[in-house]
Amino acid sequence: MAYFEGISKINYEGPESKNPLSFKYYNPKEVVMGKTMKEQLRFAMSYWHTFTYMGNDPFGVGTMARPWDNSDCSMEIAKERVHVAFEFMEKAQIPFFCFHDRDIAPEGKDLEETNTRLDEIVAVIKEEMARTGIKCLWGTTNAFGHPRFVHGAGTSCNATVFAYAAAQIKKAMEITKELGGENYVFWGGREGYETLLNTDTALELDNLARLLKMACDYAEEIGFTGQFLIEPKPKEPTKHQYDTDTATVLAFLRKYGLEDKFKLNIEANHATLAMHTFQHELNQCRINGVLGSVDANQGDLMLGWDTDQFPTNIYDTTLAMYEILLAGGFTKGGLNFDSKVRRGSFEEADLFYAYIAGMDTFARGLKVAAKLIEDKVFENFIAGRYASYNDGIGKDIVEGKVGFKELEAYALKNGITPNTSGRQELLESILNQYIMETK
Amino acid sequence: MAYFEGISKINYEGPESKNPLSFKYYNPKEVVMGKTMKEQLRFAMSYWHTFTYMGNDPFGVGTMARPWDNSDCSMEIAKERVHVAFEFMEKAQIPFFCFHDRDIAPEGKDLEETNTRLDEIVAVIKEEMARTGIKCLWGTTNAFGHPRFVHGAGTSCNATVFAYAAAQIKKAMEITKELGGENYVFWGGREGYETLLNTDTALELDNLARLLKMACDYAEEIGFTGQFLIEPKPKEPTKHQYDTDTATVLAFLRKYGLEDKFKLNIEANHATLAMHTFQHELNQCRINGVLGSVDANQGDLMLGWDTDQFPTNIYDTTLAMYEILLAGGFTKGGLNFDSKVRRGSFEEADLFYAYIAGMDTFARGLKVAAKLIEDKVFENFIAGRYASYNDGIGKDIVEGKVGFKELEAYALKNGITPNTSGRQELLESILNQYIMETK
Amino acid sequence: MAYFEGISKINYEGPESKNPLSFKYYNPKEVVMGKTMKEQLRFAMSYWHTFTYMGNDPFGVGTMARPWDNSDCSMEIAKERVHVAFEFMEKAQIPFFCFHDRDIAPEGKDLEETNTRLDEIVAVIKEEMARTGIKCLWGTTNAFGHPRFVHGAGTSCNATVFAYAAAQIKKAMEITKELGGENYVFWGGREGYETLLNTDTALELDNLARLLKMACDYAEEIGFTGQFLIEPKPKEPTKHQYDTDTATVLAFLRKYGLEDKFKLNIEANHATLAMHTFQHELNQCRINGVLGSVDANQGDLMLGWDTDQFPTNIYDTTLAMYEILLAGGFTKGGLNFDSKVRRGSFEEADLFYAYIAGMDTFARGLKVAAKLIEDKVFENFIAGRYASYNDGIGKDIVEGKVGFKELEAYALKNGITPNTSGRQELLESILNQYIMETK
Amino acid sequence: MAYFEGISKINYEGPESKNPLSFKYYNPKEVVMGKTMKEQLRFAMSYWHTFTYMGNDPFGVGTMARPWDNSDCSMEIAKERVHVAFEFMEKAQIPFFCFHDRDIAPEGKDLEETNTRLDEIVAVIKEEMARTGIKCLWGTTNAFGHPRFVHGAGTSCNATVFAYAAAQIKKAMEITKELGGENYVFWGGREGYETLLNTDTALELDNLARLLKMACDYAEEIGFTGQFLIEPKPKEPTKHQYDTDTATVLAFLRKYGLEDKFKLNIEANHATLAMHTFQHELNQCRINGVLGSVDANQGDLMLGWDTDQFPTNIYDTTLAMYEILLAGGFTKGGLNFDSKVRRGSFEEADLFYAYIAGMDTFARGLKVAAKLIEDKVFENFIAGRYASYNDGIGKDIVEGKVGFKELEAYALKNGITPNTSGRQELLESILNQYIMETK
Repeated sequence: MAYFEGISKINYEGPESKNPLSFKYYNPKEVVMGKTMKEQLRFAMSYWHTFTYMGNDPFGVGTMARPWDNSDCSMEIAKERVHVAFEFMEKAQIPFFCFHDRDIAPEGKDLEETNTRLDEIVAVIKEEMARTGIKCLWGTTNAFGHPRFVHGAGTSCNATVFAYAAAQIKKAMEITKELGGENYVFWGGREGYETLLNTDTALELDNLARLLKMACDYAEEIGFTGQFLIEPKPKEPTKHQYDTDTATVLAFLRKYGLEDKFKLNIEANHATLAMHTFQHELNQCRINGVLGSVDANQGDLMLGWDTDQFPTNIYDTTLAMYEILLAGGFTKGGLNFDSKVRRGSFEEADLFYAYIAGMDTFARGLKVAAKLIEDKVFENFIAGRYASYNDGIGKDIVEGKVGFKELEAYALKNGITPNTSGRQELLESILNQYIMETK
Repeated sequence: MAYFEGISKINYEGPESKNPLSFKYYNPKEVVMGKTMKEQLRFAMSYWHTFTYMGNDPFGVGTMARPWDNSDCSMEIAKERVHVAFEFMEKAQIPFFCFHDRDIAPEGKDLEETNTRLDEIVAVIKEEMARTGIKCLWGTTNAFGHPRFVHGAGTSCNATVFAYAAAQIKKAMEITKELGGENYVFWGGREGYETLLNTDTALELDNLARLLKMACDYAEEIGFTGQFLIEPKPKEPTKHQYDTDTATVLAFLRKYGLEDKFKLNIEANHATLAMHTFQHELNQCRINGVLGSVDANQGDLMLGWDTDQFPTNIYDTTLAMYEILLAGGFTKGGLNFDSKVRRGSFEEADLFYAYIAGMDTFARGLKVAAKLIEDKVFENFIAGRYASYNDGIGKDIVEGKVGFKELEAYALKNGITPNTSGRQELLESILNQYIMETK
Repeated sequence: MAYFEGISKINYEGPESKNPLSFKYYNPKEVVMGKTMKEQLRFAMSYWHTFTYMGNDPFGVGTMARPWDNSDCSMEIAKERVHVAFEFMEKAQIPFFCFHDRDIAPEGKDLEETNTRLDEIVAVIKEEMARTGIKCLWGTTNAFGHPRFVHGAGTSCNATVFAYAAAQIKKAMEITKELGGENYVFWGGREGYETLLNTDTALELDNLARLLKMACDYAEEIGFTGQFLIEPKPKEPTKHQYDTDTATVLAFLRKYGLEDKFKLNIEANHATLAMHTFQHELNQCRINGVLGSVDANQGDLMLGWDTDQFPTNIYDTTLAMYEILLAGGFTKGGLNFDSKVRRGSFEEADLFYAYIAGMDTFARGLKVAAKLIEDKVFENFIAGRYASYNDGIGKDIVEGKVGFKELEAYALKNGITPNTSGRQELLESILNQYIMETK
Repeated sequence: MAYFEGISKINYEGPESKNPLSFKYYNPKEVVMGKTMKEQLRFAMSYWHTFTYMGNDPFGVGTMARPWDNSDCSMEIAKERVHVAFEFMEKAQIPFFCFHDRDIAPEGKDLEETNTRLDEIVAVIKEEMARTGIKCLWGTTNAFGHPRFVHGAGTSCNATVFAYAAAQIKKAMEITKELGGENYVFWGGREGYETLLNTDTALELDNLARLLKMACDYAEEIGFTGQFLIEPKPKEPTKHQYDTDTATVLAFLRKYGLEDKFKLNIEANHATLAMHTFQHELNQCRINGVLGSVDANQGDLMLGWDTDQFPTNIYDTTLAMYEILLAGGFTKGGLNFDSKVRRGSFEEADLFYAYIAGMDTFARGLKVAAKLIEDKVFENFIAGRYASYNDGIGKDIVEGKVGFKELEAYALKNGITPNTSGRQELLESILNQYIMETK
């Protein structure tokens, strides 16, 4: 019995199609740079935005009348929701899903009951996974929504809340393992501060490191081999989130000797809230060897909060895929749509339109990026631009053969070789041409 | 012969004074937390904003008719400017100065002549230092203003420009040593990128690390014992500056094994351009043991560029001094006014009014911060708030005695101890009371 | 029977008091510029933030266990809440309240029942008003929270929603009149757009004007003599709110011939979201004769959403009161605390601490502003600065006696009289001195 | 004798061309919506950014070694620059230019000499115009760069500066008329304030209105029939610019009865500095009948200053052309590239690459927008969305036949008709499809 009765499986119909319920660019079987689009893009559905978000915002209640609304916390509905979610993924051809523990099962009267409920739902999910072949990209815990986490979880000033959070993560890791999740994500929901007047940042950050260390130990103990991912965000819900951006996370991991255990999950909208481009954050991950996975969405640069819109900007998806391809493509990670339909897009069909929008824009971006790499458009330009480091004084600098005295002698004798233009406008033109003309 | 003939030495006259050319709060000899204000605050004059800035902005030429205007690059005027600068510092009771090489002496026809000119001016400065007792807080090089640095200095795509920058830094370190400078600052003027389409960020950052390593080696070689400082900034002049903020600099230093050699020079306006509070950046430096020195100014949060205004916000100076005092106060560092009079404040008297504004606001902030610490206002609140980590399960967490299994067992059995309020509004009220009522 | 049993009436104890449950600066009977503080400040409690906000945010549910939580929409609780609210106002010495229709009574099964419920609660409120002497500053309608307003109310694309909104406003005006409300506020909750791709801005704005015109007609019909107020905001909940800022509202009112019927209700946090200072917006209202009332709160300039914090910044309250006093002080308007306790300040005592924080900061600001005006600190400076318009060519310009030809002749013959400094730094110093030293 | 010897006339070669010195999308003779691209787009060169900007920024001097550098203010060079500029426009196929008086001729020793110099250069320009057929889109005055305008021009506190500005505008209008300029632009360079502490905003705005009134009178007197345009900007160089955005300008014009005399010149980067999209500002102009002309460029939303980049974002140019076409296309206005090559794009060829980038992106945007309009993509959706206003209660609302009582009766009886989805994601998908697939 289907929920989305009026909607058939979404198929690729090509860029000329006028059918809104078709893919124009996402052709799962099309091969791009040696893999199918399905393998390159590894799209995932976010359980929360797609199946528990009801359209509420700080100024109004939900707008979306969904039969699977879980506000009464019933287990029946939670189970039904699993079936609807898998029907949706099948029809939209989404091969992975991501989830928080609390998305899939409502809390019980105490932690024990809560955990039992999780097990019950996990069993249903496993059946659906077996039936459909859909996989779990990653799991995580929601340690920010409940009032107990008002002052944070791993950085709470209340040690018993830290313990509770640890217990939640333990269970979430276990079920992620049970579901074959390829990664486990740490997003620091309320790990940050509201005001420095009441906060011991040193203790809080030490405690956060302790928590992550325990997670590593426990993963080893239970043989969980998924990749651990940290997801940066600079603000919201707290005034200052500790995992501000890629650089901040790297500083933290390196301080506490955790740099080999964690990669990053980069969210586009979190990048821009940190006043970085999406590409910048992916680039920083790439050159530091920590590009794990991606939360695919987009923000509105004129708004100062996480709007989590479906990604429809072709520049962003092209340049994101460019960095991902340069990094060798995804291994365990993928493109999780941490995106929600607008509050005004409250009809069930909008879920499909929105995922199509996001998947098509990334598919198109993949093709453009692949062509840019194939033609070595930017790589050749860059190679020429930095050629002076390939021999002579440049090579000596890179190889560590010279110091200040040698360089001063060189400069006194030779002055500088003239600079050449950075050609930004020309490169932007060429990017446009590739975006518009790639077949 | 005095330039500022109409202005006598600025004296402390107390908060009731109506004389605009007096200090209301800065009393150099007043003892606060065991040191005089002069020792605690270690005010420095910025040579550039005070004596080479002529009021130009992107939309107009200079407004300030200064006899010491150096736009014709004459050495005579450069020498006269030294005398004017020291007269100013004497009258304004500023015990330190900071400088870029190019502030004090104009470039010559080649690097050799430029270096000779520096030596000539340094000799004049040393005389004035001897005469007045005024000291050098720090020196640095200007490796961003000249067209040769259009694509950066240590991160230039042109290896000969890297060499030239190294030569400049070498000389700037030498003269800083000669002048007894207590620190040497690295602000990455154009170390960043305009567009990722033409940039090899990996090579550029590796090169930046190479440059800093060379600086460390050379300092050791010549016995320069001043503190090396890196000054973060997120953007401007480049679209993306590599030394974005404290966390970014720490990530960089830790990656390249440079963390023991460098501390940070925190600028208020750079903090806010990075969307952090000034206090946040100082706090992060404090808890990481890298609080070196401070560039005292303020930005306008409604404007997106470095306005470098004189600091007059009592909240900012109070909370900055609070962090600085908690960090043990300045050792080699100080408060350098990297601040410039507004373009509309073009009269010579405005230089005095502006420094008085900044010095008084910091002096007042020092007193309020000292009283807050003396009364343990926030410290006691914080101690109580985190008390659960002092024994029981909290102590076990901090001491690494427990892991996920033990914490889950604890949580299953005990649940959580109720949270208590963070009391932000009350704490803000108390801060106001201290600001208004501290005697 | 009291809810806040442990808390007595808050009294003025002076700035030295260590009692957190006392006023340090707000002394209701103290006379400032010819009126008591109570009369000058006209503080109001916001019913919504104080008594229906439960601490939820986009990432978590409520943290505040209030006995008067209305989430089950019971009329019993709604009535009890009235009593609690008045107990709170009495104890906190707040002479006014402001409300939305939906704050005081839950919606019924249809509009008719909803209206009946309103009448029932209004009767209870009137009793409490009579008992306590507390008055209604203003009422308004909530035409944004219910899903029917997903696309706006007066600017909805659905004409039946426009009709429904009109019906709501009619009733809200009637009960505001019944309660003796001195103003009626229009805040355009969802009057704006999410994307221009689906929006007819011309029709929507015409319709908004039609709605306001109807409100004017109906006020006249029923003899409602309260002041109509429009409250600007640039964004949130919609991407673009039509009533962006003071200038935008004035453009709108002048276009539709409504400029004589409306004044403005300026909210500090809305001003800063529009990238204006609070003072700027009040200043623009003052010079256009439309300063109606104020929503007193403060935002966080590093966050991009409406944080609605209690106002504790002395600069903001001083400069706000400065503009308000220059405008002649409040007549029908007042200072409504459109402020909510932080989510982490979830104890009932925090409600008192927060209001005390806000009231004290405004009381202090009032005194400083009054002293600045009394001493003509800025007024004298400004008078001198613009003196050239008092005679000669300046007077001719102001009086319209000259045109381009006369001015060219003047300029060709006379050139310009030298400019003088704007003295920004000195003026900021003096402001600090007044803030710190006003008795 | 040609300056750009190595560069031939830029020709349209189609989207597949690999020649960087060709147009891919701008085909001047191609007909789109009934006019040629040349007629629809009316491209103009900005004299200042193209021929007087030398690459300086607040942190460094110019990078561009141009033979026509005018820093020594010679009239010979100023004349040569005219020839170079027209050679450039001919080669780049730009049919219009825009200028400030001070771009074309350096100031002389007094206003009289300055005006004589202008006449001398205007004669040279007229010759080149006659020779080439290139026209003047608009002229303006630079009343912000010289120190005399430190406190503004029309809003200066110094009446003699007001007079001087009036004299400048008079002359600039005269030469604009002489050159057949189709518009005259008022951009309020320093018309704004730095701090309210020293500013009489009421007098300054009244004076600004007086200045504009004089301009209208003088235009009538000399028979200048070009369109007057005001160009909004929210900040920079001043902290607050009076002509913040379209709405602010409309409020101002309507207050002073000037609304029939002025249209707007919308600059993309100024729109975004005001936190509006470029489309938003154009849309507001369109629905208010004041869309005059456009300054074509783009900003960087992560930077807070006017970067004036060449426009290469296809979304922005498509949606801008969409509004312009809906407004009926340009009459007297056009697309002036108020854009400058990046400081790192300092070679002469970059001038061509940059203009090609901008012109191609707008040409492509024009074609996409035309197709969207032709297919009535958004118009049909919008028509359906607002259909409820075409009859019944909606028609009554629009026609003013009902008031609050009738609408309440309607709502009590009928409730609301269900809302339908706003379909934002689907519409964004379709926009992408049109951008990628329009032939």
